[in-house]
Amino acid sequence: MKMIDAYSGFSIDFSRMNVTAEQLDALQDKFNRAAVEMAALEAGAVKNPDENRKVTHFSDRIEYRTSELFREVEDFAEAVRLGKVTAGSGKKFDAVVVNGIGGSALGPQLLQFAINGPYWNEKTSAERNGYLRVYFLDNTDPAGVADLLELIDLENTLHLCVSKSGGTQETFNNLTALENVYAARNLDFAAYACAVTMPGSKLDEHAKGNNWLKVFPMKESIGGRTSETSIVGHVPAALGGIDFRMFLEGACRMDIWTRNKSYRDNPAMTLAAMWYIAGAGRGDRNMVIVPYSDRLVLLSRYLQQLVMESLGKELDLDGKTVHQGLNVFGNKGGTDAHAFIQQLNDGRDDFFATFIEVMQDADAVKLDGDLTMGDYLHGFLYGLAAALESKKRPVITMEISTVSPANLGALIALYERAVAIYAEFININAFHQPGVQAYKLAAKGMLQAREQLFGNLKNRPVTGSAAELAACTGLGDKVPVVAGWLNRAVANPAEYSVERKFSTDINDWVYTVK
Amino acid sequence: MKMIDAYSGFSIDFSRMNVTAEQLDALQDKFNRAAVEMAALEAGAVKNPDENRKVTHFSDRIEYRTSELFREVEDFAEAVRLGKVTAGSGKKFDAVVVNGIGGSALGPQLLQFAINGPYWNEKTSAERNGYLRVYFLDNTDPAGVADLLELIDLENTLHLCVSKSGGTQETFNNLTALENVYAARNLDFAAYACAVTMPGSKLDEHAKGNNWLKVFPMKESIGGRTSETSIVGHVPAALGGIDFRMFLEGACRMDIWTRNKSYRDNPAMTLAAMWYIAGAGRGDRNMVIVPYSDRLVLLSRYLQQLVMESLGKELDLDGKTVHQGLNVFGNKGGTDAHAFIQQLNDGRDDFFATFIEVMQDADAVKLDGDLTMGDYLHGFLYGLAAALESKKRPVITMEISTVSPANLGALIALYERAVAIYAEFININAFHQPGVQAYKLAAKGMLQAREQLFGNLKNRPVTGSAAELAACTGLGDKVPVVAGWLNRAVANPAEYSVERKFSTDINDWVYTVK
Repeated sequence: MKMIDAYSGFSIDFSRMNVTAEQLDALQDKFNRAAVEMAALEAGAVKNPDENRKVTHFSDRIEYRTSELFREVEDFAEAVRLGKVTAGSGKKFDAVVVNGIGGSALGPQLLQFAINGPYWNEKTSAERNGYLRVYFLDNTDPAGVADLLELIDLENTLHLCVSKSGGTQETFNNLTALENVYAARNLDFAAYACAVTMPGSKLDEHAKGNNWLKVFPMKESIGGRTSETSIVGHVPAALGGIDFRMFLEGACRMDIWTRNKSYRDNPAMTLAAMWYIAGAGRGDRNMVIVPYSDRLVLLSRYLQQLVMESLGKELDLDGKTVHQGLNVFGNKGGTDAHAFIQQLNDGRDDFFATFIEVMQDADAVKLDGDLTMGDYLHGFLYGLAAALESKKRPVITMEISTVSPANLGALIALYERAVAIYAEFININAFHQPGVQAYKLAAKGMLQAREQLFGNLKNRPVTGSAAELAACTGLGDKVPVVAGWLNRAVANPAEYSVERKFSTDINDWVYTVK
Repeated sequence: MKMIDAYSGFSIDFSRMNVTAEQLDALQDKFNRAAVEMAALEAGAVKNPDENRKVTHFSDRIEYRTSELFREVEDFAEAVRLGKVTAGSGKKFDAVVVNGIGGSALGPQLLQFAINGPYWNEKTSAERNGYLRVYFLDNTDPAGVADLLELIDLENTLHLCVSKSGGTQETFNNLTALENVYAARNLDFAAYACAVTMPGSKLDEHAKGNNWLKVFPMKESIGGRTSETSIVGHVPAALGGIDFRMFLEGACRMDIWTRNKSYRDNPAMTLAAMWYIAGAGRGDRNMVIVPYSDRLVLLSRYLQQLVMESLGKELDLDGKTVHQGLNVFGNKGGTDAHAFIQQLNDGRDDFFATFIEVMQDADAVKLDGDLTMGDYLHGFLYGLAAALESKKRPVITMEISTVSPANLGALIALYERAVAIYAEFININAFHQPGVQAYKLAAKGMLQAREQLFGNLKNRPVTGSAAELAACTGLGDKVPVVAGWLNRAVANPAEYSVERKFSTDINDWVYTVK
């Protein structure tokens, strides 16, 4: 079973999935329901009931292309490129640091690597046609910040803060660190900074209050992991010279295709059905994503977030405990055949593979015989597909013509829609992330435990095991947490002076807090 | 249950694995057998019976540190750094391209990124202290080759070909492409090339026959995925200025620890036991690897190969069909908490997580309050561990002091040993890769099908569907394969002229081969 878009050359082949027409037809009720629900979603229904909000990433992008805001982003990027908007130092901007995490980073990283290639930041400004080098701060790791600060020239770097809520702790930490570094150099950070955030958010107020160069508004109805076709994807892409209009064209074209009500004419619906059948409706098979393309090595990481954060849920829409999910991993072919694919061939039969082929060679690298390098890569893909097929291990293959903005837009739109449809099949909310909220609370508890620990130890020098120090600070039920903070204090003596010695008696550290 | 190496500060905590002492003690027979087999392995037994070879990566590295060969590699790297060995152009080498795949790339990539950081190649020669920029060709993607060729200066780039067998097709393709590019520029590739390969291999003969700058010998008894502590890891590391002696020190120190016969004193044995118990001896839980460190983002990819290629096997040592394996994926924390970790918290209970913490902050990035950025990262890790623990989802935590060569050596040695021990538990050969061989054969068949297809079509212009063209070329049982080659020919018109039109009748392409 194969589905083809003759215009773009995009095609998807399900024939190696070992799924029969009967199995698909048996899902007709689910297809019908999904079609109704997707239409309702696009018509503006509240499809994220927990957060009481609409879900508009499918419907907004077609209008976004011709919007005032789209033009504003393009104009800003062009002004930066031409040096009409300059850094506070008066210099032309040469680099942008995208400070954002999760949904604010994975899409821009995918696009940047796929379209501008792995060595973009090593090219000269002329080779980049004046567009900016693009870096990412996508964590709150002091080493990541230190590495970046060692590299960049503060005076020609633009800082783009991306946070929908404006309160993402990691992003805010990076922002504070950057502001402090600029202040220490007597530079006005505001003259190097722009933001993408919801109007009225903490970040919005901070940026506007400090007169940042630019603040772009983000919609409440678009979630982080589905924001790549919105302004979140647009600003970094435009600053790096990526044709975002074509990216949206590809996405919108796929949207039209995947709005069809019959699964036979709808690759997203069929894709979701394949996932559903392969994993018995519970995600029993891992989704292994293998693009045969160096440029697409980040696709699996992008899809990992899109799929797992959307579908990995404890409760269904009726409040029933379901513990749903669908694991995603993979890197790139043919490389992976020399790594984990040994297991796919011979080991656990607990996955389905998705191979994505780029049909047109970027360069016809000639070898000595009659075959090109691209012929070999193609042979490896089909060889692996055949090897898996011979063992009845399910495989989906896709073809795209080139690694272009339009094709990436199509791929992303396809997976976004398949995820939303699959969520209807299993009756869950694909658009919230309660587990992340729970984790944030737990993390806050850890910081409170630290305060309690050192607050209680501050005025009384004491020696003891983690258990003993936990007990005398009212943290007796949190011994590993106490040990963690003590070990950190040993390694980073800035604020508290803690030493430790290994005790063979207790087979653990004994600490002295001075 | 916690195990600590007081000297290095390395520690590993199994207390959140929900494993009881009784469960561990019940494995005593397995522990005993593993201890005996590991001792036999290190004493030189043939532990890879299929390939009839010894397995010496555990035992060789201690002697390698003081060997003549070690010194030779260091001397070569130093001569390159100082410009005493120059490129054929007479210029000082400024970059090295490591051409290798799988086991010849993943370890060097991990080390390079972890120790030299993400921006090494953007630093000046002075900032690099004369050591080389390091690039990788780890596939046979023409786009990957084209991207690299656009970037590098042929006249100051060293090419390091790494292939144990010397016949790896991907690596050989890249080599041929590079040789052709150099020849086209009238440059003698041999004066820019060195190799790591087995004496007598195809690559060895080619390199020596052409008078390459240097050929380093690789041992037959060290497999690709366990070769990072051998010369395969050493040459790229040395050229990039990484202290490989310390890397080996860390590995050898871990080797001593993990040779202990009692699991209580052996973190590798306990780690393997945790995997075994968590996955019911069948790998029923995925291994999720989350280092809380930007520099360690490639660790999961490295371990994916080490674990899955070693343990993903169809047959056990008695020839019984077992379809074993252990899935590995992950990226880095806290980033992942904004991606797939929603599923770990709430969704399928089908994994165990491994968190790796770097205790010493690379830089004490000060924020506005009393907490540093490192405190937040620590809080996020413990918060997530606590959230998972509260749902009885198993977690292993590890601490290393810094991202140093020694600590990376220790981590790699730990996992190498745990994999070998786990293989004993499940009675499989961890050191061969029959599935990769099968796949290589299948890929060869694809290239033969191409020859058959176009050979038969060459002299008779013809129009038809893939099925029709398959039938008239004797490939009637290979319709998808024929379609694949035709689509490639459409996209890459170099050799054969093929056009296609979409037919709504058959809902597929109709081809015209001219």
